[in-house]
Amino acid sequence: MSQAPEASGLAIGIDIGGTKVAGGLVDAEGRVVRRARRDTPHRSTRPSVVEDTIVDVVEELLASLDQEAVVAVGIGAAGFVATDRATVVFAPHLSWRGEPLRDRLAERIDAPLFVDNDANAAAHAEWRFGAAREESHLVMITLGTGIGGAILVHGEVVRGRFGIAGEFGHMQVVPGGHRCECGNRGCWEQYASGNALVREARTLLVAASPMANDLSIRVGGDASLLTGPLVTEAAREGDQTAVELLTEIGTWLGVGIANIAAALDPGIFVIGGGVSAAGELLLGAARDTYRRQLTGRGYRPEARIVAAELGNEAGLIGAADLARQGATGS
Amino acid sequence: MSQAPEASGLAIGIDIGGTKVAGGLVDAEGRVVRRARRDTPHRSTRPSVVEDTIVDVVEELLASLDQEAVVAVGIGAAGFVATDRATVVFAPHLSWRGEPLRDRLAERIDAPLFVDNDANAAAHAEWRFGAAREESHLVMITLGTGIGGAILVHGEVVRGRFGIAGEFGHMQVVPGGHRCECGNRGCWEQYASGNALVREARTLLVAASPMANDLSIRVGGDASLLTGPLVTEAAREGDQTAVELLTEIGTWLGVGIANIAAALDPGIFVIGGGVSAAGELLLGAARDTYRRQLTGRGYRPEARIVAAELGNEAGLIGAADLARQGATGS
Repeated sequence: MSQAPEASGLAIGIDIGGTKVAGGLVDAEGRVVRRARRDTPHRSTRPSVVEDTIVDVVEELLASLDQEAVVAVGIGAAGFVATDRATVVFAPHLSWRGEPLRDRLAERIDAPLFVDNDANAAAHAEWRFGAAREESHLVMITLGTGIGGAILVHGEVVRGRFGIAGEFGHMQVVPGGHRCECGNRGCWEQYASGNALVREARTLLVAASPMANDLSIRVGGDASLLTGPLVTEAAREGDQTAVELLTEIGTWLGVGIANIAAALDPGIFVIGGGVSAAGELLLGAARDTYRRQLTGRGYRPEARIVAAELGNEAGLIGAADLARQGATGS
Repeated sequence: MSQAPEASGLAIGIDIGGTKVAGGLVDAEGRVVRRARRDTPHRSTRPSVVEDTIVDVVEELLASLDQEAVVAVGIGAAGFVATDRATVVFAPHLSWRGEPLRDRLAERIDAPLFVDNDANAAAHAEWRFGAAREESHLVMITLGTGIGGAILVHGEVVRGRFGIAGEFGHMQVVPGGHRCECGNRGCWEQYASGNALVREARTLLVAASPMANDLSIRVGGDASLLTGPLVTEAAREGDQTAVELLTEIGTWLGVGIANIAAALDPGIFVIGGGVSAAGELLLGAARDTYRRQLTGRGYRPEARIVAAELGNEAGLIGAADLARQGATGS
């Protein structure tokens, strides 16, 4: 069956994280039919460089299409997005400050554009197509460079008064703790993110701890080569130090989840983002701590803690689907 | 103008806190036209003793009426109330555990009954009649024996999946910190409540700290006689130690508010409960800390932090008005 250009049914989703820009052509059932990706420009570069990267990814995806148009382009950005879904107010890991991202991109991309927080996008995707289908009260936690978060009630993103709700990663869990990119100390994301995992692993290597022998061998003694996926791989292969490092991240994850449960009382927590690839190594520790720390435990129903089903693509799938919804009303 | 019994326009509100049961006859404009109060039975007593106290207060208020009936009775309880608005799931400071409070009271009180969390009730009252009129996104913090909390979005109480949202007092702010009645350690209410204020003041007295000379004189050297209002009075009269104690409570209040702002991004925080009688001594310190600690500060709109306008009566006014709304649909 041939289709009019505007009826391809495809939307583009772009997920801008602290380290990568991932794009995809997404159909109405949430399937990614084509992909493109770039490294995220360093936060010290001008905002326009990030915009160039986004346009580049969109053009690559459009070039793969034969005559068809896309119904909309959705951007999921690791930053505070205003309720207008056009302006990035602040991005701890990127160079945007009050950036009119939608207007800037609209000059260069010819399709309806919607900007959203990346975790809002991921939460929408998991609710629509993934681990939280038919759940009325969902909290999404994305563990990547930092921690993203989102709240969905009856399928609607809870945005707060100014659009910035769900920034759980910047709740303080340790008074006077580690310094965070956001300027504060002791933020949750300094204890339960990919950055935290790598920081702790590198500390052991730099100190030449005998605990870190196995990890050290994996990177030829060069601590700067350590990454989160490498620690996860070592843990999977039985390295006890790597297991301990992931357990510690999972424990802090559980502390924060218990705090969010006290405040928001959701029915389910969906854990996504790159670090969640560690699976039960991480989630097991998180669940144990959550159960030990939840206020009123034993006397109240408890939210489930589950892994995201859409993996690292939740953000781009959700950004595409939210944009489709914004452009077509369905 | 004469009225039919059922059209008195009055509802009864009962606020059950950790130390007192306060009741009032409340008209449709939120005015309290008559009051009654009792001490809260100790948490070690049977749940039925608290019910006796509630029935007692309701009967005293009804006895003051001449022929008229009330449209509804609302109970605001310092505990986790299920979404059925009938069952108290858990109460850290009271003896209720899965208590079917509405059904038990319905056997003894002949009027439509609604049970709500006390902070939800206070938030509703402040939104309808007090400090947060016309605000779309409100967070209420009540500082009493512990910390109560509530979330209102567009005038609706956000209850969460199981009815227990808004229990901010049991978010952990200090890992391994003070033990809380809820069973955990380091809960916010162990640092920013009336209990925290009294604990810290008594510690100084018991240690015979020279810092506590003035406070000690006020209670004849008997630390057990120290109360929150007494510390507030000393601070008002210029005692520097009392000022420091209240500033510390205010500082922790600001820490928690910044955390809640990161998660929920409200437009206004309303601070109520007995301890809020300390006014700017408390709120000044809270605002300073909040501004220093808010993630993205300087790059985002900030919620206001204001004192409740309805004082200690917000809970009973809100409980009455929520019950009226439940019974009459208006």
